[in-house]
Amino acid sequence: MQFEVTILGSNGAIPAYNRHPTAQVLTYNGNSFLIDCGEGTQLQMNRYNIKRGRLDNIFISHLHGDHYFGLMGLISSLNLNYRTHPLNIFGPEGLDEIINAHLKWGKTELRYKINFHQLSADIPVQVYEDEFLTVETIILQHRLPTTGFLFREKKGQLNIIREKIQEYRIEVKDIVKIKDGGDFILPDGKIIPNKELTHKPKPPRSYAYCSDTVYTETFLPQIASIDLLYHEGTFAHEHTARAAETMHSTAKQAAIIASKANVKQLLIGHFSARYEDLNILLSEAKTEFLNTSLAIEGETFQVGLP
Amino acid sequence: MQFEVTILGSNGAIPAYNRHPTAQVLTYNGNSFLIDCGEGTQLQMNRYNIKRGRLDNIFISHLHGDHYFGLMGLISSLNLNYRTHPLNIFGPEGLDEIINAHLKWGKTELRYKINFHQLSADIPVQVYEDEFLTVETIILQHRLPTTGFLFREKKGQLNIIREKIQEYRIEVKDIVKIKDGGDFILPDGKIIPNKELTHKPKPPRSYAYCSDTVYTETFLPQIASIDLLYHEGTFAHEHTARAAETMHSTAKQAAIIASKANVKQLLIGHFSARYEDLNILLSEAKTEFLNTSLAIEGETFQVGLP
Repeated sequence: MQFEVTILGSNGAIPAYNRHPTAQVLTYNGNSFLIDCGEGTQLQMNRYNIKRGRLDNIFISHLHGDHYFGLMGLISSLNLNYRTHPLNIFGPEGLDEIINAHLKWGKTELRYKINFHQLSADIPVQVYEDEFLTVETIILQHRLPTTGFLFREKKGQLNIIREKIQEYRIEVKDIVKIKDGGDFILPDGKIIPNKELTHKPKPPRSYAYCSDTVYTETFLPQIASIDLLYHEGTFAHEHTARAAETMHSTAKQAAIIASKANVKQLLIGHFSARYEDLNILLSEAKTEFLNTSLAIEGETFQVGLP
Repeated sequence: MQFEVTILGSNGAIPAYNRHPTAQVLTYNGNSFLIDCGEGTQLQMNRYNIKRGRLDNIFISHLHGDHYFGLMGLISSLNLNYRTHPLNIFGPEGLDEIINAHLKWGKTELRYKINFHQLSADIPVQVYEDEFLTVETIILQHRLPTTGFLFREKKGQLNIIREKIQEYRIEVKDIVKIKDGGDFILPDGKIIPNKELTHKPKPPRSYAYCSDTVYTETFLPQIASIDLLYHEGTFAHEHTARAAETMHSTAKQAAIIASKANVKQLLIGHFSARYEDLNILLSEAKTEFLNTSLAIEGETFQVGLP
């Protein structure tokens, strides 16, 4: 099952070097989940061919503009595209008031309903669940109430036994069904039960998004051993004091969190406009956690093994 | 004196074909005036090297998102850039409420003051004046209260007499002063009065911005004989009914306005997302008014003769 994250914006507050403010699309089984929505997100979606129609859930971490100033444009374009099915928006108190002020003065009556889910930054809770996934908030420490988001698969996908594919001449479309737990029907009508075709499932995969936050270990237990962690790494080590002052993290601190939480892979982003060359951030992070990548816009990262 | 318009965004409501929502920068004598501020305007300013520091006045035509959703990002970046001098924002009722909602929930105290000048769309009035320019509103007909903007030079620049430059060996820096009305001082201290060095001034130049609007002739007298008219031309002729229904204009209608107002040059923009190739709009406009150009992003258009 597809489970991946595409970076739409990776920069901190002031856009620079053609990097955009924060936005990511998580895609699971063809469905899109937008995580933060900085200015220009809809334009970045166009650029990277992310379809607006597959988007039903938007998660906003906090109300600094570089994380949500693109939301109204997206809401508006969805409306102009004749969307009629509801849109879930998860975000902090006040976001609904802001949205409503825009709609009121623009005399805009949306063709679709916005279901606003107000998030608290007090304790982590599950805020979303569907057939495949749950989403929990992560409590971050920033200058405003801020939550990260933890996407967990509910169950791992079954491993099909390779020899059975040949034995029963199973085609790709049926392999997908079997991996989801289905039985296989032979041309003569005989049913081969799923348990004969598969090994036990792979462990459920998980992705955590943690931005913006000062260095804090409070959520370490929650993200222990996850597959992919995105943690902001706004500054280089020499600006550790500046990071603390502005309640951001250094790339090195992001890597310390990754290491202590024993995650499998780390992505760093929310880069300060002072860095044109991001390699300083990457190399400093790698001293603490080797399997680190930069959140480069347009790149897609797999969550765990496909 | 420099008097020119740079196109930052030329598309209608839904961004398409890498075209951005509406924004323009008018530059006069080194100072920038922003006209509308669609999503991504600050990124476009970066791209085309428009300095945020030279911007003191922002004019917003109306509260459809494609004309102002980039405003909060710009306000925020100016603040992060440590701006301290006031910013004038001219726009419709409600824009201040929207700005304040964002600032309140973002717990943002700006380092600079925003002077909000509420515009009425009832009758045209002068809303701005400095040493060189005035700005008047133009009353447009759209689905929301909407004003265009007419930028007029207060007086034309003096023409320096070419022979005098050689006769007195006048350098470029002094030519600029003389064109602005200054006398010239010879090395021996003798003063050559301005009237001996110049012909009477060129006529004052003027630029009108008219977007969004349905076809209307009500403002024709106001824009009569101006140097450069920007008039929206959202649709091709075949969609004339759709233009009327959405209170927009066709490119051909924009050109009829240009022709009837006897302006010197026409720029059309606010292109519908249905047109990848804009030549249909240009050619239809040219049947009515030959001196028409497309408002292509990144291009700069001189207002009258420099």
